[in-house]
Amino acid sequence: MPKQAIRTAVKVDLNTPAWEQPQLHNRWHPDIPFSCKVQPGEVVNVECLDWTGGQIGNNDSADDIKYCDLSRIHYLSGPIEVEGAEPGDVLVVEIQDVQPLPEQPWGYCAIFDKNNGGGFLDSHFPNAAKAIWDFEGIFCSSRHIPGVRFPGLIHPGIMGCMPSQELLDTWNEREKELVGYHASIGTDRVVANLPLEKFTHAGSADSDSAAKVAKEGARTIPPREHGGNCDIKNLSRGSKSYLPVYVKGAGLSIGDLHFSQGDGEISFCGAIEMAGVITIKCEIIKNGVKDMCMKNPMYIPGPVEPHYGPSRYLTFEGLSVDETGKQHYLDVNVAYKQTCLQFIEYFKKFGYSGEQLYILLSCAPVQGHIAAIVDIPNACTTLGVPVDIFEFECLPKEGGFEKIITSDCAFTSGA
Amino acid sequence: MPKQAIRTAVKVDLNTPAWEQPQLHNRWHPDIPFSCKVQPGEVVNVECLDWTGGQIGNNDSADDIKYCDLSRIHYLSGPIEVEGAEPGDVLVVEIQDVQPLPEQPWGYCAIFDKNNGGGFLDSHFPNAAKAIWDFEGIFCSSRHIPGVRFPGLIHPGIMGCMPSQELLDTWNEREKELVGYHASIGTDRVVANLPLEKFTHAGSADSDSAAKVAKEGARTIPPREHGGNCDIKNLSRGSKSYLPVYVKGAGLSIGDLHFSQGDGEISFCGAIEMAGVITIKCEIIKNGVKDMCMKNPMYIPGPVEPHYGPSRYLTFEGLSVDETGKQHYLDVNVAYKQTCLQFIEYFKKFGYSGEQLYILLSCAPVQGHIAAIVDIPNACTTLGVPVDIFEFECLPKEGGFEKIITSDCAFTSGA
Amino acid sequence: MPKQAIRTAVKVDLNTPAWEQPQLHNRWHPDIPFSCKVQPGEVVNVECLDWTGGQIGNNDSADDIKYCDLSRIHYLSGPIEVEGAEPGDVLVVEIQDVQPLPEQPWGYCAIFDKNNGGGFLDSHFPNAAKAIWDFEGIFCSSRHIPGVRFPGLIHPGIMGCMPSQELLDTWNEREKELVGYHASIGTDRVVANLPLEKFTHAGSADSDSAAKVAKEGARTIPPREHGGNCDIKNLSRGSKSYLPVYVKGAGLSIGDLHFSQGDGEISFCGAIEMAGVITIKCEIIKNGVKDMCMKNPMYIPGPVEPHYGPSRYLTFEGLSVDETGKQHYLDVNVAYKQTCLQFIEYFKKFGYSGEQLYILLSCAPVQGHIAAIVDIPNACTTLGVPVDIFEFECLPKEGGFEKIITSDCAFTSGA
Amino acid sequence: MPKQAIRTAVKVDLNTPAWEQPQLHNRWHPDIPFSCKVQPGEVVNVECLDWTGGQIGNNDSADDIKYCDLSRIHYLSGPIEVEGAEPGDVLVVEIQDVQPLPEQPWGYCAIFDKNNGGGFLDSHFPNAAKAIWDFEGIFCSSRHIPGVRFPGLIHPGIMGCMPSQELLDTWNEREKELVGYHASIGTDRVVANLPLEKFTHAGSADSDSAAKVAKEGARTIPPREHGGNCDIKNLSRGSKSYLPVYVKGAGLSIGDLHFSQGDGEISFCGAIEMAGVITIKCEIIKNGVKDMCMKNPMYIPGPVEPHYGPSRYLTFEGLSVDETGKQHYLDVNVAYKQTCLQFIEYFKKFGYSGEQLYILLSCAPVQGHIAAIVDIPNACTTLGVPVDIFEFECLPKEGGFEKIITSDCAFTSGA
Repeated sequence: MPKQAIRTAVKVDLNTPAWEQPQLHNRWHPDIPFSCKVQPGEVVNVECLDWTGGQIGNNDSADDIKYCDLSRIHYLSGPIEVEGAEPGDVLVVEIQDVQPLPEQPWGYCAIFDKNNGGGFLDSHFPNAAKAIWDFEGIFCSSRHIPGVRFPGLIHPGIMGCMPSQELLDTWNEREKELVGYHASIGTDRVVANLPLEKFTHAGSADSDSAAKVAKEGARTIPPREHGGNCDIKNLSRGSKSYLPVYVKGAGLSIGDLHFSQGDGEISFCGAIEMAGVITIKCEIIKNGVKDMCMKNPMYIPGPVEPHYGPSRYLTFEGLSVDETGKQHYLDVNVAYKQTCLQFIEYFKKFGYSGEQLYILLSCAPVQGHIAAIVDIPNACTTLGVPVDIFEFECLPKEGGFEKIITSDCAFTSGA
Repeated sequence: MPKQAIRTAVKVDLNTPAWEQPQLHNRWHPDIPFSCKVQPGEVVNVECLDWTGGQIGNNDSADDIKYCDLSRIHYLSGPIEVEGAEPGDVLVVEIQDVQPLPEQPWGYCAIFDKNNGGGFLDSHFPNAAKAIWDFEGIFCSSRHIPGVRFPGLIHPGIMGCMPSQELLDTWNEREKELVGYHASIGTDRVVANLPLEKFTHAGSADSDSAAKVAKEGARTIPPREHGGNCDIKNLSRGSKSYLPVYVKGAGLSIGDLHFSQGDGEISFCGAIEMAGVITIKCEIIKNGVKDMCMKNPMYIPGPVEPHYGPSRYLTFEGLSVDETGKQHYLDVNVAYKQTCLQFIEYFKKFGYSGEQLYILLSCAPVQGHIAAIVDIPNACTTLGVPVDIFEFECLPKEGGFEKIITSDCAFTSGA
Repeated sequence: MPKQAIRTAVKVDLNTPAWEQPQLHNRWHPDIPFSCKVQPGEVVNVECLDWTGGQIGNNDSADDIKYCDLSRIHYLSGPIEVEGAEPGDVLVVEIQDVQPLPEQPWGYCAIFDKNNGGGFLDSHFPNAAKAIWDFEGIFCSSRHIPGVRFPGLIHPGIMGCMPSQELLDTWNEREKELVGYHASIGTDRVVANLPLEKFTHAGSADSDSAAKVAKEGARTIPPREHGGNCDIKNLSRGSKSYLPVYVKGAGLSIGDLHFSQGDGEISFCGAIEMAGVITIKCEIIKNGVKDMCMKNPMYIPGPVEPHYGPSRYLTFEGLSVDETGKQHYLDVNVAYKQTCLQFIEYFKKFGYSGEQLYILLSCAPVQGHIAAIVDIPNACTTLGVPVDIFEFECLPKEGGFEKIITSDCAFTSGA
Repeated sequence: MPKQAIRTAVKVDLNTPAWEQPQLHNRWHPDIPFSCKVQPGEVVNVECLDWTGGQIGNNDSADDIKYCDLSRIHYLSGPIEVEGAEPGDVLVVEIQDVQPLPEQPWGYCAIFDKNNGGGFLDSHFPNAAKAIWDFEGIFCSSRHIPGVRFPGLIHPGIMGCMPSQELLDTWNEREKELVGYHASIGTDRVVANLPLEKFTHAGSADSDSAAKVAKEGARTIPPREHGGNCDIKNLSRGSKSYLPVYVKGAGLSIGDLHFSQGDGEISFCGAIEMAGVITIKCEIIKNGVKDMCMKNPMYIPGPVEPHYGPSRYLTFEGLSVDETGKQHYLDVNVAYKQTCLQFIEYFKKFGYSGEQLYILLSCAPVQGHIAAIVDIPNACTTLGVPVDIFEFECLPKEGGFEKIITSDCAFTSGA
């Protein structure tokens, strides 16, 4: 039978508020009704808004980032019912393509204000900043970060099946415990986002269900056992994800598309965020969770990742001795932060601002590795940067580098 | 001028105790005399003992691992004086080849006892175990871990220049502070190894210097600003390392050769440890430390790394929720441990023991990435395992897997 | 300035005959009027019909192939005027993306009848046959060739600038001479297609120009100095082609899109032919032809080619001794034919028909290399086949292979 | 059982004439006695002289090339008896490593005089020339071709099993027929080398056998069904070759080691020729020839080939229109010659001589592809050159290139 054009299972409308579109939702809860249904083996398109549902504009100010409302985020497309999927099965999602929406060939990457989201290096870069990225087919470049251009490793930041009520309760419990503990010791930063009724979007749920979702629904920021906001840069074209199923019909939701991201997504809004369309095919492995002893998802990357030879990666190293010289015990977080700072200091020599580099490091396809984690007391991490993303020669050399970058990224109007 | 055979700058003798060989040393200290001298641009061979100086045998018992004396380790070849190198310069070390010694075509990878070294998963695997790996050219395989065979990503675990007295003092101070802090809170594990006179080998130092080295010399286990035991698997054939210079003549030392290692080197003696010979060429970048804003080393991997297509990596995910279900705040260590455990549970289905998999994960060329580190409260890490190292089909499939592995690795005689 | 949706410089209509669409043409001639204009640096979409202009259907018969009219082929989109391009310049065409038309997610690969086009192995496979390929995002598979699935190395078969009258005359002269020579020695096959008035489509040319084009216009089958039908599989996403310019405005034309092709495109209609859209950006290198001593085009492949590790290529060898055992002198054509036949014989063991394999070899991303061309009297060629395109295990092994393929490709109704 | 040092099955002596070493031979004939025996699965070292048996020196004159005696070439190590191999079996040879001899860390690549061997471009470069290459671990560079440096794709040029008498007769017959035909039409170049008694080296054969070998023994220059001098650059570390067996014990011979070679080996002595040692392991596939329908060898490349990203290959194109403008019919040889000439003209702009580039093109790891072979009348070939082998920026750009190379390769004293 001749192949038809691919069916679009979820459509989005860029001109309607995200919260008015019933095929979207922004919490994880088993009572959110399915927005559509697919057959195993069927190929469908799923359109997605950008993670903020359109709060961020293509302009030269970071004000929209500074005041972005984080309770209004992660408008996900779904949940998609997959015919025949049952708890204990594994849902295999092949991502067959990801594309920006043709009418919006751009995305953004940003530093969130330390008091509104923050990021991995927010003690160094506490203020909001932004870079707009233009897409040219597989490539992107930014008027806010001159001198770089690279092909996207395009992927969804979020993909996962709906939790069962039991799993949801576990999530809420353990996160509440964490928040409680940190409150008890007086931590001054937000360590987790507990359920929040305000701005809950429960898809097409009726009012009773919607109220339940608002009260109990898990927030979308963290990745969890089901996948969710795992922000793995390699879930790109051609990849296959193996996701545990917890409810009848699976309830697959997808969103937060990224044109590109580096390991860590360090500036929080650290990928090149975009609206777009993802083409998927779902298959079911019956009883896969037990047969493969799965607790978290697994995946196999796709065969068309941008690739550079190994000797085209300038690689920085960092240890678990922090900026103040204090020795930490095998702490990978401290080590990775030092590694990131090394990258930033190196490339500042070419004239970039720290903010530009923080953004670049977040969204360019950098490889962040845990090199060694047993050599007490120092963990060692590495950060490989593909030199071919730079339009100038950037390898180490005698005599230092010339400052060639003279413009900066977008800041807030008050900055 | 016709090229001569390459000069061997450091020779080792497998039949003499390591501590009697003056061209070796096992502490970092500026007073250890140079053992030889090379010119910038000169290619030389440097022979190295295995890290324990020969304490471990090619046999089927892990007793030697259990009783291995960790104060007697890291016999390094050097320090090598590089003509013209001065503090503030950067030493560029090109690794042109690494080979096992022809008379010893085997290595070992081991789990250390929890009370003697331990490892990343020692709460799960507290007892010593061992696997011997046989080398066949670029490949290795093990009678103790059947069903796998792979090319080595051969490299030195340790490479670095001698610290200045000032830098050495900084190291000792900060590590002492860490030890003190942990003592004060009653931590029950060794968090750092402070200078130890016993079994110090100060190379060819006279007795006064040797005494000073014994008293102050930094232990060799942790990587530090100079590189040292960074255990980065990609410092292989063809790589170029950029190392800060702290003393006149640089004082480059190398050792702890690995036939292969995975990201993390998780079982502590987690690489395939071997004696061998490394071919290097040193160059100097004058004032490079300041010109390139270097705090830690950088490197560029070599062009001949074993390579697999991206879609040949089965990749596991893990989060910062620990084995007990407790939620941690963006803790990469917790997440990576979960990721490792996922790998182990999956492959146990084929009949492997947990110890075999812990060892395999330590020494096979697995890729450990920090995927996302900003999605509170969960950090997400991934672990990519090249499926082509297995001689059987291991990709996810319906119906579960057959147990095909029926033998185990080496344990202690009491086990 | 915010980025707008990408402009479509050339549109096609699948429901109108190709020869009635003035933005298309099927001859090379400087008098064909430009169909549109682009600026250097501007990104545009160019839609293209499949090479036959829609003669081939998605069905299970090869009759349409058998009777395909080859004087009606290669409907190209263009010529595109590039502002500022002049003779002697080099036009740099970056291919930013290539996609099938959404409404036609399929293509075809076929064996042409020996008497209507033929192909590299037409003495072995003289009759028409066909396989339809369905597209799923980056992947394709065929109901006519079960057991294989692979990502496309999607590209245009044809791209080139319009020849000057002088260059056109040279082409016509040398090809006429070849035809004349072969007529004189009684060769029984068509060795070149000279200008042919019938079915000439001169785009929007007025009747005088159209008559001139019909009389002199170079046929589109061969690649020539300007590029043209070079059928290079690697001119895919992200590639950069350097094309000589011969007329003011360049006159770039593109067509004959392929979802995938193997080296050689051996069955003539040997790629997976499709209608689609290509996104390009043109730049100009002034006086590049002389400065870079260019006679033919050059290119740099794109960074997102499907990639397999080198050890995933089963590679066949062939020599310049033909099927009858006759020794030829360093003849690469003979050697490559033998190499192809080796592939076919090997895979027949799995149950495939020769026609299926001939088609597969034409369109799958196989690597055909000239290994040695100086070892008299034998040339040696190799053919590398990525084993990961097969859904079954196909590497050499003891005991032979099981026949697992039981259906065949499409043949003619009389076959 | 602990692994012993690897046994050296064939040793060579650099200080004894090749023809006096009984473990070597320079003809293919079933009566040459085995020089040693190996078991299936056994790993052994095989030492090899360079192909000329030491005729070429590390100096700055090409006189030794000009007068090199080509009847004295290809001193092969073997034949090696493989226990249990029988006619009809397939011998699987895994190449586990290849290394230069430590005492001779250099090799050479040369242009042979048109009247003594010649080469692919001898009508352009008729005179002998030479470049010496120095080895630094995996890398090589040449004082005669400045500005380039690259890792070797090290491999044996020759590997094959002894022919049966029947196969040998076939070879001699068909080559004699070719020579006869060319003599009949008055071809002025040597098209094949028939058996030649002079300088035959039959290994350890007794005088009767030696006489028979001298009379009938196949010369070693061409590759044939058994493999032989196939000069495939990818038979490197980790590759697996599948070779047909024709005589009991297989009689595997190896030689003509290359540090590196490009596709085509175009200058005839076109690889970086060296003496060295190869580590191999043989296995047997019983009845493999019939079960896998093998006529010629197959192979799988190794996993550690030097690798560059696809977008680091500057790729030249060529067609079957020759230097005089004459159109040939789908002639790949003509097309590849044009492609090579395009490379040479391009890089001459940097100051290289044609001879330097002819040599470089022969021995650098260039990729020569048969792009299209059905688009009458033009065949299209491509030549991909990894830009990372150059120490200067060589990609196309506006404004032309600066001449930076100012010295030349070695020529003959009369030149």
